[in-house]
Amino acid sequence: MGRMNDMNGAESLVTTLAASQVEVCFANPGTSEMHFVAALDRIAGVRCVLALFEGVATGAADGYWRMAGSPAATLLHLAPGLGNGWANLHNAGKARSGIVNVVGDHATDHVQLASPLNADLAGIAGSISPWVRRSTSAAEVGADGAAAVAATRDGALGRIATLLLPADTAWGAGGRAAKAAAADPAEAAPQAAIDAAAQTLRRLGERAVLLLGAAGVRDERAQQAAAAIAAATGCRVLAEFYNARMPGGRGRPGIQRLPYAVDAAVQRLAGAEALVLAGSVEPVAFFAYPGKPRLLKPDGAALLTLAEPRQDVPAALQALAEALGVRAGAASSGGHRATNESSAGTPVPDGALTLDAIAAAIAATLPEHAIVVDEAVTTGRGLGPPMAAAAPHDWLQTMGGAIGYGLPCAVGAAIAAPGRPVLALEGDGSAMYTLQALWTMAREALPVVTVIFANRAYRILQGELIGVGATVSGQKAVDMLTLDRPDLDWVALAKGHGVPAVRVEDAGALVQALRRGFASQGPCLIEVAMG
Amino acid sequence: MGRMNDMNGAESLVTTLAASQVEVCFANPGTSEMHFVAALDRIAGVRCVLALFEGVATGAADGYWRMAGSPAATLLHLAPGLGNGWANLHNAGKARSGIVNVVGDHATDHVQLASPLNADLAGIAGSISPWVRRSTSAAEVGADGAAAVAATRDGALGRIATLLLPADTAWGAGGRAAKAAAADPAEAAPQAAIDAAAQTLRRLGERAVLLLGAAGVRDERAQQAAAAIAAATGCRVLAEFYNARMPGGRGRPGIQRLPYAVDAAVQRLAGAEALVLAGSVEPVAFFAYPGKPRLLKPDGAALLTLAEPRQDVPAALQALAEALGVRAGAASSGGHRATNESSAGTPVPDGALTLDAIAAAIAATLPEHAIVVDEAVTTGRGLGPPMAAAAPHDWLQTMGGAIGYGLPCAVGAAIAAPGRPVLALEGDGSAMYTLQALWTMAREALPVVTVIFANRAYRILQGELIGVGATVSGQKAVDMLTLDRPDLDWVALAKGHGVPAVRVEDAGALVQALRRGFASQGPCLIEVAMG
Repeated sequence: MGRMNDMNGAESLVTTLAASQVEVCFANPGTSEMHFVAALDRIAGVRCVLALFEGVATGAADGYWRMAGSPAATLLHLAPGLGNGWANLHNAGKARSGIVNVVGDHATDHVQLASPLNADLAGIAGSISPWVRRSTSAAEVGADGAAAVAATRDGALGRIATLLLPADTAWGAGGRAAKAAAADPAEAAPQAAIDAAAQTLRRLGERAVLLLGAAGVRDERAQQAAAAIAAATGCRVLAEFYNARMPGGRGRPGIQRLPYAVDAAVQRLAGAEALVLAGSVEPVAFFAYPGKPRLLKPDGAALLTLAEPRQDVPAALQALAEALGVRAGAASSGGHRATNESSAGTPVPDGALTLDAIAAAIAATLPEHAIVVDEAVTTGRGLGPPMAAAAPHDWLQTMGGAIGYGLPCAVGAAIAAPGRPVLALEGDGSAMYTLQALWTMAREALPVVTVIFANRAYRILQGELIGVGATVSGQKAVDMLTLDRPDLDWVALAKGHGVPAVRVEDAGALVQALRRGFASQGPCLIEVAMG
Repeated sequence: MGRMNDMNGAESLVTTLAASQVEVCFANPGTSEMHFVAALDRIAGVRCVLALFEGVATGAADGYWRMAGSPAATLLHLAPGLGNGWANLHNAGKARSGIVNVVGDHATDHVQLASPLNADLAGIAGSISPWVRRSTSAAEVGADGAAAVAATRDGALGRIATLLLPADTAWGAGGRAAKAAAADPAEAAPQAAIDAAAQTLRRLGERAVLLLGAAGVRDERAQQAAAAIAAATGCRVLAEFYNARMPGGRGRPGIQRLPYAVDAAVQRLAGAEALVLAGSVEPVAFFAYPGKPRLLKPDGAALLTLAEPRQDVPAALQALAEALGVRAGAASSGGHRATNESSAGTPVPDGALTLDAIAAAIAATLPEHAIVVDEAVTTGRGLGPPMAAAAPHDWLQTMGGAIGYGLPCAVGAAIAAPGRPVLALEGDGSAMYTLQALWTMAREALPVVTVIFANRAYRILQGELIGVGATVSGQKAVDMLTLDRPDLDWVALAKGHGVPAVRVEDAGALVQALRRGFASQGPCLIEVAMG
């Protein structure tokens, strides 16, 4: 727009964000951001959501992008605020979520002074954000903001764009509002890649794996095309082991995920002579383990890229189906079970809180079109298959492996998708990293049911200790991997944040608590007592 | 030591740390650190303290150094773990605390793969740590650890030294233990600086300010020398506005601090023709404000460095006193009130919870040799003067301005100084950043009394908003600066972490709760209802 007016820089930025369809700002402001807060107050169009810790703000922005497909802004306070938000920016970066990451800084004539909050802001920003710009005057802030919004798009993917906003560029006069250019459509996969993939799948059948990632998983029609291709050619179809967003449940294609455990993943890929990558990348081990492979595909198996993650993966799968003469949705009962069972409802469990009972309780009570945020770590791995019988839903996973993503992601997903219930599945260890998100759920009255699997241990690490071949016998190691002495009381923690909570000790009580939670209009928390 | 044996790399590192007097490790480990955990388990000499969030571990290491004068180690999990610890490393860096900051990383042959936790670890480490080394083989880990310990010393100051520990260098065979070289003594300030300072103070009298920082504040004899110099020459003596550790209370020199607010600080320095820096640096405004100065000293006033922070500041002050013919401890009743009132006890307040009543309650109940960790922000600013009448104590402040330092710092201080009671003064907003520290207090049975000043607002920001000249009228800005809807329930939050707690609504109840808290053997929390 570029018109001069009597805005200050902060006002020009808020106007720019609103004009560029950035409708939400997850904020934890400080002194250097006060003019931005004042501008948000005065100018309509951007909803402000307060977080009591920056990792909540950045994780919420990740969840928001996954459900809205458009970026939210953050508002962080100087380098330490960015530090606190770093881990969930890492997760967002791996999820390829777009975020307009606004970080306030000292005024231009103050930043070189040895003040307490002076720090290497450019250094930490560069370590997490592929796009960084520092505004140099109030007149430039609007254009910089528009450039940041545009930079959150990388084809079909999102990207973190960090705008460093010195206090004087916010309070200075002469702001000019701008507007981000419309996003370019994602580019098409090359025809040669489609032809090569078609030839490979036709030739190899079950000795080929079609590996879905990015929009190949996120888009339900892409899943259907992949399932139809598998049914027609006999190839195996798998999703990557973590996915930013994966539709699942009754009536949807039954796409399995590659397992997390190295041995299981290697086994699932055994015999494959080619991996056809549809928005995915070559599968690698999450961690290295002594004596185990780092790369998961069989030695010598070919890698063919059907479509890169940033390309139009659903269109590429559609084109592949056409090249193979397959009609999506017309999957036969061939090599791939095309569609999850559509029998209404699943049996309601009772009795002990086994993994099977927990999975059945969730599958039986999940409302239609729920959003499930999965950070249940050890417990969560058992939940996948039973969820095929649940009501249709979206399943969101941590993409960067940094724990503390779940509760913030649930906040952002709920705000991006009003009217859809959210279920956050959390380990007790992981939930502790960003438990402050509970307060934002209460303040914003978000319909999030948080389930804490309270095994009172870093259970995954107890397994990993064995996995890496470390041997221990003493109390010191036990102490590093347990969360007891004292036990965390999640009912009290939730109450402290203003969220009603209950502890359940059997499957019947879990079912009841889930039903009550999904029926309520606001957040609640269920602590599940694990053996 | 360098002897070959059958240790793995992790064992050589633990042996090296123990041999180098690094006696505590504040840990939040993950898979890549499992061998280090196993080594800590098998080898005696390093106490392990588990934190449920990395910011607790790094803040505790800061508090530990401040009280022990020797470094603790941390154990963090990859780049996101370092991100979570970044803000309190920033505070520790500004406090010039020494920390052996151990960050596990992926194995050497895994780190280049596009795994979920792959990140720019070198970039984020370089943005916060002046010394970074990445071990390249198990045989080098011991020597690298010894070098890291040595690098935590910079004359009289500490430094953050970050050791990146790939998983295979931890599990690999051929570890060699080493031992850090003894620290060099801090260098002496040059005689010319002492002579120049003596001449200036003698010439200018009250038109000179002797500004104490670093060990000039931390060392009680240095404070006494400064007070005696002030009494003899008539110069003003002040401490910097934030100090890593400042002895105070009855019988100690009554050193005032430079105020935080720009106008008040400028006024306190008005008329000064010279600032003599004794371990301090030129005072600058914490933040920039439109139309206010960034530099606090009067225009044209000279800056003389008596001793740099890393030099032997107490010896320099002693030498300065001698050059002036002053005997420390023999302060007259001249320009400076030499010693805080030594009248036993202070009146116990009752009635409303005014700032004066709160200060009196703390001053009246504080046990001898308590450690006070001050992150009370708005409320805390009123506590300074009344504490002169309290029992002798050490006062610790955040040095980097990143909130969330207080509760972790209290953990580290309590572990560094067994037998000394700790009082953590917290704003409700600031305590929320790292509330997980409460759990570590409970697990380690630390005698920490946490007082939460629950004003249910970012009260400091409500003032800063006016300070920077921003004007607001609407609910959106109010919402960004308040912590109500819902109210945080600190009694429940503490209980959730295993810490007993009480809420007090008048001064009598506060006195009673403080007395009970200081008499108990473990942690407790007091929520103070602010108007």
